[in-house]
Amino acid sequence: MTSFARRAERVQPSAIREFLSLAADPAITSFAGGYPDPRMFPIDELHKIYDDLLTPGNAAALQYAASDGLPELRALVAARLTADGMKCTADDVLITQGGQQGLDLTAKLFVDAGDVIVTERPTFLGALIAFNPCEPDYRSVPMDEEGMDMDALEEVLRTTERVKLIYTVPDYQNPTGRTLSLARRQRLVALAEEFDVVVLEDTPYRELRYEGERLPTIKSLDTTGRVVHLGSFSKILAPGLRLGWVLAEPEVREKLSLLKLAADTQNGTLNMRAAAAYLTNFDIEGHIASMLPVYRHQRDLMLSTLAEAFPSGISWTNAHGGLFTWVTFAEGFDMAAFQRDVLIPRAGVIAVPGAPFYAVDPEPNHARMSFSGIPDDRLVAGVRAMGALLHEAL
Amino acid sequence: MTSFARRAERVQPSAIREFLSLAADPAITSFAGGYPDPRMFPIDELHKIYDDLLTPGNAAALQYAASDGLPELRALVAARLTADGMKCTADDVLITQGGQQGLDLTAKLFVDAGDVIVTERPTFLGALIAFNPCEPDYRSVPMDEEGMDMDALEEVLRTTERVKLIYTVPDYQNPTGRTLSLARRQRLVALAEEFDVVVLEDTPYRELRYEGERLPTIKSLDTTGRVVHLGSFSKILAPGLRLGWVLAEPEVREKLSLLKLAADTQNGTLNMRAAAAYLTNFDIEGHIASMLPVYRHQRDLMLSTLAEAFPSGISWTNAHGGLFTWVTFAEGFDMAAFQRDVLIPRAGVIAVPGAPFYAVDPEPNHARMSFSGIPDDRLVAGVRAMGALLHEAL
Repeated sequence: MTSFARRAERVQPSAIREFLSLAADPAITSFAGGYPDPRMFPIDELHKIYDDLLTPGNAAALQYAASDGLPELRALVAARLTADGMKCTADDVLITQGGQQGLDLTAKLFVDAGDVIVTERPTFLGALIAFNPCEPDYRSVPMDEEGMDMDALEEVLRTTERVKLIYTVPDYQNPTGRTLSLARRQRLVALAEEFDVVVLEDTPYRELRYEGERLPTIKSLDTTGRVVHLGSFSKILAPGLRLGWVLAEPEVREKLSLLKLAADTQNGTLNMRAAAAYLTNFDIEGHIASMLPVYRHQRDLMLSTLAEAFPSGISWTNAHGGLFTWVTFAEGFDMAAFQRDVLIPRAGVIAVPGAPFYAVDPEPNHARMSFSGIPDDRLVAGVRAMGALLHEAL
Repeated sequence: MTSFARRAERVQPSAIREFLSLAADPAITSFAGGYPDPRMFPIDELHKIYDDLLTPGNAAALQYAASDGLPELRALVAARLTADGMKCTADDVLITQGGQQGLDLTAKLFVDAGDVIVTERPTFLGALIAFNPCEPDYRSVPMDEEGMDMDALEEVLRTTERVKLIYTVPDYQNPTGRTLSLARRQRLVALAEEFDVVVLEDTPYRELRYEGERLPTIKSLDTTGRVVHLGSFSKILAPGLRLGWVLAEPEVREKLSLLKLAADTQNGTLNMRAAAAYLTNFDIEGHIASMLPVYRHQRDLMLSTLAEAFPSGISWTNAHGGLFTWVTFAEGFDMAAFQRDVLIPRAGVIAVPGAPFYAVDPEPNHARMSFSGIPDDRLVAGVRAMGALLHEAL
């Protein structure tokens, strides 16, 4: 086994896999998922699209295509990004196998063994899994309700050598649901500039906004090309298509394209065509707008039931968007043990204990709870059951 | 830029990209492609499959799925591999983003910088692109009409330290169209055993057999689990689905799965479902059988036209399957220069000059010519035009 392969094992996904298998058990009420609500997938529209694509004159939809991605899809993504304040062209966009591949390729481009990646505290587990094979050292920066603490970040940047990447999920972060404030976005760009570091901005939840203003992306504040911006169709169209994108400066985008070519040649042509057809022939902004009340209702129900059912001394984030709230128990509380010993056997309820979301110094007294796609009655019953057991335990 | 990213640039795909853009020009007759004939794609059957899959009750087809691949697809692939002499179960199979991802993940697992990969001479360019980021040293082993020369391989293994991987395309190799004989397959397994090396067997063309016996795969001769076997749906179903597989021993397969999870989470669920439905509801063996006469005819026409039109002193391989013949000109002939200065400007014909297919010590006096998907009249006219210019030049 190579050093690369050994490093890939530093984060063991087995804990998550165990939850996934539990979550598939219909007797279990799972707040552990991070999946979008499948009722939101535009399946009729996609049916129409594949029906049109898979016709005898259209075999090119099943043929090889360019490794950077289908040109028309790159152009359509560029137009949406431009409308979101990031002026760009098709040439600046690389189509990736979901957002995850953007994490993998960007780390390979910028991070050698022993280089430092700065993450939020906590951060997206999938990013750690993607980064670990590059064998980085990590620093993590505490967050509050406005996202990553910029004074703490400045301190890290001032006192740490070889920082190559600052990784952030600024909108409705996984796992906390928190959003980085505008002032902090501006300061983040200034700090990245001052300390000559690349910012990796990951925005899978950006469009799932239930309250609050739409803030500019970090990339849109970037005047010197040091922000790599990742996005994904997984939450706005469907994850099963595995389509995401990277927006980056030409020199960076070109190098990421070479790494993409080496890794898997290209994304699937058929799915790229389908996404392009969706963006061309259907109203994705209308589709997103139609999803928001559903998710907002699920979030509201989760937060109000937590308030009603959970003992005092436990707090949780008020996610303005996305799929998650982050629950913080008293210091010393071991969520993993509570779940294993009490919550699963006595209530058949699961969440994700928070420790794996820390790049360094994991904290055991948190849980990530998703409200996505859970029927109202099960959501309420599950949170209440969890609350009752917490009342007993505390 | 990291050392990884620098290494990715060691093979410049720009030459190939240039051909692809020329090949898209309808005025050019291209023998440069490596694409399957799009008329062979089972588009009506796939239309039916996606029509059935994309129905309101079936949103799971668009949801996330297991990173190892859809369980039913893994089982169906395992059943086909078992029928091909490689007894295995779903658990031994990892679904990958085409064959290319299998190359990438396997190299990451076994090859550290400075380790040695042994390739055929010449070898598949895409494999070199996948391997290069791991910064291997290469040795290459000459081939004859029976494939890799096993005496030469033994000599390399005896005299070279840190050999980790022997890479081979045993069936109708890209770029030569050659097939490794049974005796050499047996000896390859014995040598790998003796020198404690992993064999990476890549079989994208295996099913496109136009003459000769079906030989056992190297994996089927492997008694100690040191062969990693790659396959792909690209040539038997359609490349635009981006579906391949790795068959490997449990310990290896599990580590490859972790690397897959880090790289891109999973293959697209919808396409995995579609491939599983195809294998379940349609007759893929019948479909493959129906393709063979078409490709055999294209091959025969290419070989007979070469014999008629090319000057003496030029030789080419008699590919028993696959998509390519490998043309060898006299020593000192520079195919790239001939193509640039004569063949393109005067005849509008392209092939792939052979130099990029060498891991080390490229030879300029070869061309890879594909016969796939070219209309008969254009194929004949293109080969004749090329032959006439070669007569002039030589």
